[in-house]
Amino acid sequence: MSSASKNDQSTFEASLLALGLERRGGVPMHVGLAQALRTRILAGHLPAGARLPSSRALAEELSVSRSTVVAAIDQLVAEGYAEGRRGSGVYVVAEVPEAVLQSRPSTPAASSDAHDDPAPPGPPSPFQPAQPDMAEFPHAAWARLFQRVWRDPPPQLLSGGNASGLRELRREIARHLGAWRGIDCHAGEVIVTSGAAEALELIAHGLIGSGGAIALEEPGYPLARRVLARAGLSPLSVPVDEQGLDVAALARQAKMAAACLVTPSRHYPLGATLPLARRLELLAWARRSDPPRLVIEDDYDSEYRYHGQPLPALMGLDAAAPVIYLGSFSKVLSSSLRLGFMVVREPFRARVIAAVAETGARAALTAQPVLARFMASGAFARHIRRMRRLYARRQRALVKAVATHLGGRFALEPAPAGMHLVASLEAGLAGRMDDAEVSRRARAAGIVAPALSTFYAGPPRRQGLLLGYAGFDASAIDAAAQRLAAALD
Amino acid sequence: MSSASKNDQSTFEASLLALGLERRGGVPMHVGLAQALRTRILAGHLPAGARLPSSRALAEELSVSRSTVVAAIDQLVAEGYAEGRRGSGVYVVAEVPEAVLQSRPSTPAASSDAHDDPAPPGPPSPFQPAQPDMAEFPHAAWARLFQRVWRDPPPQLLSGGNASGLRELRREIARHLGAWRGIDCHAGEVIVTSGAAEALELIAHGLIGSGGAIALEEPGYPLARRVLARAGLSPLSVPVDEQGLDVAALARQAKMAAACLVTPSRHYPLGATLPLARRLELLAWARRSDPPRLVIEDDYDSEYRYHGQPLPALMGLDAAAPVIYLGSFSKVLSSSLRLGFMVVREPFRARVIAAVAETGARAALTAQPVLARFMASGAFARHIRRMRRLYARRQRALVKAVATHLGGRFALEPAPAGMHLVASLEAGLAGRMDDAEVSRRARAAGIVAPALSTFYAGPPRRQGLLLGYAGFDASAIDAAAQRLAAALD
Repeated sequence: MSSASKNDQSTFEASLLALGLERRGGVPMHVGLAQALRTRILAGHLPAGARLPSSRALAEELSVSRSTVVAAIDQLVAEGYAEGRRGSGVYVVAEVPEAVLQSRPSTPAASSDAHDDPAPPGPPSPFQPAQPDMAEFPHAAWARLFQRVWRDPPPQLLSGGNASGLRELRREIARHLGAWRGIDCHAGEVIVTSGAAEALELIAHGLIGSGGAIALEEPGYPLARRVLARAGLSPLSVPVDEQGLDVAALARQAKMAAACLVTPSRHYPLGATLPLARRLELLAWARRSDPPRLVIEDDYDSEYRYHGQPLPALMGLDAAAPVIYLGSFSKVLSSSLRLGFMVVREPFRARVIAAVAETGARAALTAQPVLARFMASGAFARHIRRMRRLYARRQRALVKAVATHLGGRFALEPAPAGMHLVASLEAGLAGRMDDAEVSRRARAAGIVAPALSTFYAGPPRRQGLLLGYAGFDASAIDAAAQRLAAALD
Repeated sequence: MSSASKNDQSTFEASLLALGLERRGGVPMHVGLAQALRTRILAGHLPAGARLPSSRALAEELSVSRSTVVAAIDQLVAEGYAEGRRGSGVYVVAEVPEAVLQSRPSTPAASSDAHDDPAPPGPPSPFQPAQPDMAEFPHAAWARLFQRVWRDPPPQLLSGGNASGLRELRREIARHLGAWRGIDCHAGEVIVTSGAAEALELIAHGLIGSGGAIALEEPGYPLARRVLARAGLSPLSVPVDEQGLDVAALARQAKMAAACLVTPSRHYPLGATLPLARRLELLAWARRSDPPRLVIEDDYDSEYRYHGQPLPALMGLDAAAPVIYLGSFSKVLSSSLRLGFMVVREPFRARVIAAVAETGARAALTAQPVLARFMASGAFARHIRRMRRLYARRQRALVKAVATHLGGRFALEPAPAGMHLVASLEAGLAGRMDDAEVSRRARAAGIVAPALSTFYAGPPRRQGLLLGYAGFDASAIDAAAQRLAAALD
């Protein structure tokens, strides 16, 4: 050791002694000692390469046990401030880089300051589409069920359970689909997901593969298009007419497609129900290829049908058809649950399950037993029926409010189902501005009304606004229509 | 191929032919064939390791198209019954795991019966790693909180709230990180995710972009590698030594990498803590490029440290470094919650938030207010401290059990942190079999002990078993070590 570092070391030892190592409340002695040593090294009191006093010497000088000193020095070594050299003690590392010297210690006190965190969005504004009325959420029943389930949690709830979802919930979903959608499936074919986006990713990765083409409705659901593109698929747009997906155009234009995503119950966003003849053509198109193409049926809000019997789901039409069914609890309960599901039969099921295993399940199990019990008790079906009556009234309120305040500017037809209507721009208004401008003016007046043109991947063929009515009562709907009229004058 | 397996194969082919493959109503031919093959494998007519007949031969013998045979075999491979070996055909997997043998294959015909849904996995078996003890989950407190929150739900809970997570929870996470990990961040920099996999996808899509390269630790976390590869990134393996990531090798070998994923607190799975000097080199490496490379710090179980103070997180070292921090509640509470988080500072934050918006948030809000209140009350910190004491005792129990029952076969060092230890194969055992074989024998004895070699993307440099101890009490640990010893004799 050089004499310079000998001097340094004396300074260091003095500085240590001057510290008066006190046992701070709750902090073990060796932590305090490590802290003191660290501070001395960072302050430059002990330079790079200097040898630390032996543990025996330090223990004696500081009147602490030797094991305390050893623990503190081990800590410094682990942190990289010091290093042992075989058979010759412990040294301060050759260079404690500037970055450490500059880094300020953290100040947890300042960390609770939330000034950079934007305020959460307020309650949804009319006419936000796809928004159920959260005041109607059966929260008292759910609070009771949460308490019951979590007080005495089933073992599968906490240990991760089945990656495809809690079995009790999958059984209830299979029952629900049998009763409501004419789908004959069993719990093993149901995979609980965090929503349609995850389901589409699983299909893309597990069944189609990067580079594959998928036919999408035009206009259609922009999030689905983004998810599929991000998963490496090439979207092919197929036009939609007043009956829904133009299956003849699909057959002409999407020969390369390995799959087609379709909303047969109620086209999103235009609202058409795909007639039976087209459904059969669609299945025939899928089978014309070997291996067959996939039909992905997104049945996002079929529970809300106000008039007439719903057509059974595509998947219910033919048990052997290459159809995968997507459903969601976002519209019937709340999007906060992030719970949806897919029904996947063999030969596709095993590959989708493998895709789940490959990168991990995403749906929380937290609410799955609660939802399963809610469904099993019959409360779920009652809730849907109640919301159906409520939303039917609200649709009538919207039709009336538009006729009263916005007649001549928008044309809007009642629909037998759904949570929104599409208001087309009448010629007078369309001559003055496009739907994006209408939507912007509405936004400035506090009204959410997405422009129909934003649902087109290519040039929009129609101009209009999506007006959601499910989440808002008649007086809110009327007031919003009045405000929108004022914003357009 | 040995003559024994040749005989087996003839038996197998005869058994296939005897099947009389009939087109069952609505079931595609390849599904029926896959089913037939599966049944034969499960019945033991084709033993482990045996080669399947070529698709050409099978197609001829069964008078079906070759594409039907290929589809059926692809199916078996996807299901894990068979595996392809480069250039030499398809083989029955070395061992069809018990779990598969117990679960019966699905039979689409009997679709409304739930008997096709394999029973959910039982409680976790020793030595499953990364498994907290679920009997210790604070379920009574959670049941009360669930009831309180859901009886009178905050508006943000049901209407979807902020896509980056409930603000109250993000605030509590920021506070926790300040106090426990030395990270000075605010709630706006915290994004709640459904786990590390989603966080990695957001980084891949929002900050790196398809085709970008990312450096990964070798050995490392296989799920992370799969997630990143699926998101379009090219993984580059960088070796790990007894101090963790070899940062010098990183600098030499990963010049093209846009990012590096690292487990500095405790390397996964080997357990080293990255020393300060390497941490600083790593940050210097990131900054040497313009724009800087990203360092993704996966701090997956840093709460469980039994001796010494943890090194502050990399992100706590330097507030301006290009570091993104990943944390999880899977290890401290339960993986069932599917709740994790990332801390992302500007200039990265806005792009990650945009990536969330692009394809939708995945983390359920269901438990977020419950967790926020659990953290705010101090119960979370108490729970961690209690688990820490418990798991420290269990680690000692594991060390003792291995020394008692498995001495001479495995070498295993106590560690100051974590939820598992790596038991290296001693020369005698390693001379008889590799770690994959040891793991298979353990599995057959009801013991889960992943082979270290499966954590390598390339040729494994070390052979060992991961022995998780957190989820199992001392007597279960001792009994499992005894069973493992018996299984290896």
